Amino acid sequence: MQNTKRTEIAHLGEFGLIKHLTEKIELRNNSSVLGVGDDAAILSYTDDKDKRVLVTTDLLLEGVHFDLVYVPLKHLGYKSAVVNFSDVYAMNGQPKQITVSLGVSKRFSVEDMDEFYAGLYLACEEYGVDLVGGDTSASLTGLTISITCIGEGAEGKIVKRNGAKETDIICVSGDLGAAYMGLQLLEREKAVFDGKTDFTPDFAGKEYLLERQLKPEARKDIVAALAAENIVPTSMIDISDGLSSELIHICTQSKTGCRIYEERIPLDYQTASMAEQFNLNVTTVALSGGEDYELLFTVPLHKHEIVSKMKGVHVIGHITNESLGLALETRDGTEIELKAQGWNSLAE
Amino acid sequence: MQNTKRTEIAHLGEFGLIKHLTEKIELRNNSSVLGVGDDAAILSYTDDKDKRVLVTTDLLLEGVHFDLVYVPLKHLGYKSAVVNFSDVYAMNGQPKQITVSLGVSKRFSVEDMDEFYAGLYLACEEYGVDLVGGDTSASLTGLTISITCIGEGAEGKIVKRNGAKETDIICVSGDLGAAYMGLQLLEREKAVFDGKTDFTPDFAGKEYLLERQLKPEARKDIVAALAAENIVPTSMIDISDGLSSELIHICTQSKTGCRIYEERIPLDYQTASMAEQFNLNVTTVALSGGEDYELLFTVPLHKHEIVSKMKGVHVIGHITNESLGLALETRDGTEIELKAQGWNSLAE
Repeated sequence: MQNTKRTEIAHLGEFGLIKHLTEKIELRNNSSVLGVGDDAAILSYTDDKDKRVLVTTDLLLEGVHFDLVYVPLKHLGYKSAVVNFSDVYAMNGQPKQITVSLGVSKRFSVEDMDEFYAGLYLACEEYGVDLVGGDTSASLTGLTISITCIGEGAEGKIVKRNGAKETDIICVSGDLGAAYMGLQLLEREKAVFDGKTDFTPDFAGKEYLLERQLKPEARKDIVAALAAENIVPTSMIDISDGLSSELIHICTQSKTGCRIYEERIPLDYQTASMAEQFNLNVTTVALSGGEDYELLFTVPLHKHEIVSKMKGVHVIGHITNESLGLALETRDGTEIELKAQGWNSLAE
Repeated sequence: MQNTKRTEIAHLGEFGLIKHLTEKIELRNNSSVLGVGDDAAILSYTDDKDKRVLVTTDLLLEGVHFDLVYVPLKHLGYKSAVVNFSDVYAMNGQPKQITVSLGVSKRFSVEDMDEFYAGLYLACEEYGVDLVGGDTSASLTGLTISITCIGEGAEGKIVKRNGAKETDIICVSGDLGAAYMGLQLLEREKAVFDGKTDFTPDFAGKEYLLERQLKPEARKDIVAALAAENIVPTSMIDISDGLSSELIHICTQSKTGCRIYEERIPLDYQTASMAEQFNLNVTTVALSGGEDYELLFTVPLHKHEIVSKMKGVHVIGHITNESLGLALETRDGTEIELKAQGWNSLAE
């Protein structure tokens, strides 16, 4: 009865594995509107079209997603909540509730948990979300965090990944790559530290990078600004795995191509300076660095003037015909095909 | 800045820790009706009172909640889903959707994941539930499973833990302690096995115990039978940590006492026989053994005749005044105070 075939999960990668495991699902309940494959699932528990329910979930494992050597537990609590809120905003919805499950080894004290929850509650307060449930359990190794976020969205205003159309313009909020450079900086200082007792890490002038890595925010303000302008994006996703990976999701699901311009990719000065120190190409960092939690979205061409003037929004390119592929035009006019080189923790 | 005080989590235990971390929560959204403290949270996303949303979540960790030496992955998938459905039924609701997050180490192959998902999908099919989302990630150690279940319930029909009233009768479905004895049996055979290649475990005549441990069912049928008789229990909970622990939850939250009768606790013959082999008191097994996933509920005294006749339902006692405490009357007429000796994975 032994199954003799063995396919390594790395062979499929994270997205490949999810697709493999879920592609045959047929939704059976009327209340299940949209299942696996977007930032959040869409449920319909009422005929009131303004009250669709959004559900998203994230699993965070010590040693894979975070390193407690340099991540304070309060920041970890804050970030764990915010990354889930970000998925609801990416659907053009509002997060309302979370459940939090924790697996905790004996290394952790009640005071440690207090710190983690202080961060969680701070995020809940800032974003108007209620913690309504969870599960707490012993763990043999380290800290396991699983958060599910439930949110609200209106039919006709909820934005999926698959609605981008040819000639739509591509927008991104904030700037990219800083969270990744913050991580590199923390890893470098950790290596230098290496158990020394009188060690003071060198973070002067790099505060923005650390903040982007340790205490990211979800772009509630952008969702509000779009609503104030009566703009419903044609597609939207949050940037957790790098710009390339997310653009590929949008174009694949929308069956389009895209063309973005290197010179338009928004970067912070600290990101560029740090990338130089690390001998990294800053464009590669912006394309493939993870955890920015900015919003990537598309709007019809005639909204160009409005979005161009919106604070914190940058137009980086436009949607093209599928046959044209996914193109990045570099500063010197060369065309490069976009590939996902983002965080793929299963593919190593 | 070091926090000098260190309180061990074991000092509070699982329920104590949850209470400590969540007791100050004040719900801020209108859509958050009931938060932490019951089998599921209650959300209200519509004015239609028949469409309340129930949310529950469970975290299962390899080595803590399951042992893959004797738990087939397909069974694990089935059970992981069913234990969440059980929490929704315990609210007198109907499970509709689940999200599934997995942390998977390199030990596991794609074929292993196929097995796990086959079990998940089987459970979804049997209970009419849709898998709508999740997260998949690498893990450094073993398998981590986090499932959130979303269900539907009607206001006025949703049953919480806090509604039991003096003179209500206490009912339990099915029989108790079999899952715990199944676990003991599997642990014994694992110890005997100890790596032998020509080993055949001795499970003859114990199939029921194994099934209760490896492939439990949620009592959808009991919820349907109660509805058919137009009975809305005054309180309800599913038995995951043992009868004692669950009765304590109901009585504490309802501010009542209770009196149950040892001779009325439903037991299967195999459970009794196995307990004897293991030199365990079978009543202790029923009171403190976990994972039965039966329903414990209370109904008004005047429903006594109806519930007594319901298939699979056993009347085991009645609710008393809080001042009378939680009493078990043994076969010889002695009164014993009920204490939670159930599974408390954090308290060891």
